[in-house]
Amino acid sequence: MKLAFIGLGVMGGPMAGHLAKAGHSVTVFNRTRSKVQAWAAQYGGTVADTPAEAARSAAIVFSCVGNDEDVRAVTVGKNGAFAGMMKGAVFVDHTTASARVAVELYEAARARDLHFLDAPVSGGQSGAEQGILTIMVGGDAAAFDTAQPVMKRYGRAVTLMGPAGAGQKTKMVNQICVAGVIQGLAEGLAFALRAGLDGKRVIEVISKGAATSWQMENRGPTMIDDKFDFGFAVDLMRKDLRIAMDEARTNGAALPLTAVIDQFYSRLQARGSGRLDTSSLIRLLRDK
Amino acid sequence: MKLAFIGLGVMGGPMAGHLAKAGHSVTVFNRTRSKVQAWAAQYGGTVADTPAEAARSAAIVFSCVGNDEDVRAVTVGKNGAFAGMMKGAVFVDHTTASARVAVELYEAARARDLHFLDAPVSGGQSGAEQGILTIMVGGDAAAFDTAQPVMKRYGRAVTLMGPAGAGQKTKMVNQICVAGVIQGLAEGLAFALRAGLDGKRVIEVISKGAATSWQMENRGPTMIDDKFDFGFAVDLMRKDLRIAMDEARTNGAALPLTAVIDQFYSRLQARGSGRLDTSSLIRLLRDK
Repeated sequence: MKLAFIGLGVMGGPMAGHLAKAGHSVTVFNRTRSKVQAWAAQYGGTVADTPAEAARSAAIVFSCVGNDEDVRAVTVGKNGAFAGMMKGAVFVDHTTASARVAVELYEAARARDLHFLDAPVSGGQSGAEQGILTIMVGGDAAAFDTAQPVMKRYGRAVTLMGPAGAGQKTKMVNQICVAGVIQGLAEGLAFALRAGLDGKRVIEVISKGAATSWQMENRGPTMIDDKFDFGFAVDLMRKDLRIAMDEARTNGAALPLTAVIDQFYSRLQARGSGRLDTSSLIRLLRDK
Repeated sequence: MKLAFIGLGVMGGPMAGHLAKAGHSVTVFNRTRSKVQAWAAQYGGTVADTPAEAARSAAIVFSCVGNDEDVRAVTVGKNGAFAGMMKGAVFVDHTTASARVAVELYEAARARDLHFLDAPVSGGQSGAEQGILTIMVGGDAAAFDTAQPVMKRYGRAVTLMGPAGAGQKTKMVNQICVAGVIQGLAEGLAFALRAGLDGKRVIEVISKGAATSWQMENRGPTMIDDKFDFGFAVDLMRKDLRIAMDEARTNGAALPLTAVIDQFYSRLQARGSGRLDTSSLIRLLRDK
């Protein structure tokens, strides 16, 4: 199938790579030209000069960029993909962005006889590399049915959650839950250390029961070791929590502790730790 | 082996039952006489009139009672077990209590040539019934080695965490982590419902990734259904969080969000919901 992929960062690069490896004909675009050359050298796709050009003959156009403004730029912006796409083609946005921009672009696409799916992912860089991402999709069922088999090349679970924006909203729920888990874990493990307990033995024991979580099993030991140079960056978490809190202003949901945790992340950024994993939250409680 | 068990509540009853079923000779004591008769009718043990009498010829005496004061009463109180125990015998307390009372009774026991282990459990009523509790133990290794094989009758994981009080401190870490997980889950799922998402489908999707937890998998769906007449009661959680926060005053750990979550639980109690499962926290965010 003729495909296009816009945005070859740490997520988009390997995702587009899975499509090329599966035998699809992939045309790519990336703002930073050097990245796109390296990608093409590895996977052999075609390089385009603009999103519009990349999208020209593609049945499905994918993007994985930074934020709302970047998504608007590569779709409805100057030389954006929408201008180049064939009627009936599907645009799939993997960026974690607002539900508002998803609805806006869904409607802009429809006005041009195009389809738009918001499809943020979870699973991080290693999930993208291994092709086992969780993909939460919002939009029309027909467009989903077209894109879903292709997304399966890098997604283990690809689920239509509802109409336009529902994918983004599901990702927000995910991040709200993660924030609470990590904060509880940070308070619990910092307490364990102050109490003179062997932190790793505590994790081993309590991870067998009702306190356990993916974060406890995968980040607990590194929190004890004060190691955070991997994983999901504080800067990205703050971006995601802002999106969730903005959406909560619209839907009326209360996020009392998420809002406080976001402030703790703000402190980490102010300390120059924005690129560390979110589990570095424990540092604020350990005076590290 | 000759054993004694003090406190036949929803946890102690089935725990003592596992010991009797394993062929141990178990003498039991319970403050409420009717409970002890029902237990003896089911398991055939001997009934004692006081903790001291129950403990008379036991190699290990177990207790599972309500709080610090109850533990003191059945050990060093009038007709308490310590007065009846043979020299060298081991007292194992399964109550979730303070680390302070654990250290105090460890020392009182030593002064009488007895041994004391603090051994709070997690896994709840169903864990006790199925004999698959997690048991976190503080005290001396020799006493632990005596009691550990017997505790295995109702414990899947029985671990010595450190000196007297270390079992209680580990249980505190467990509860702090649980509090954060449930709060994040409550905020996330309440947000999902306000956002018009299908709550159960959201759980299905995000429980495959980094947001997942025992609580999400086991309590998420019932939170969506607003069902809370089972599980671990808010009243017990508040008791446990008070113990943890008292300990934090001693060891200097900061529990900023745990303290706020405790206040949310206070609101549930004030509404007469103290006996509902801790996951009912979501009700405060759903106006239920």
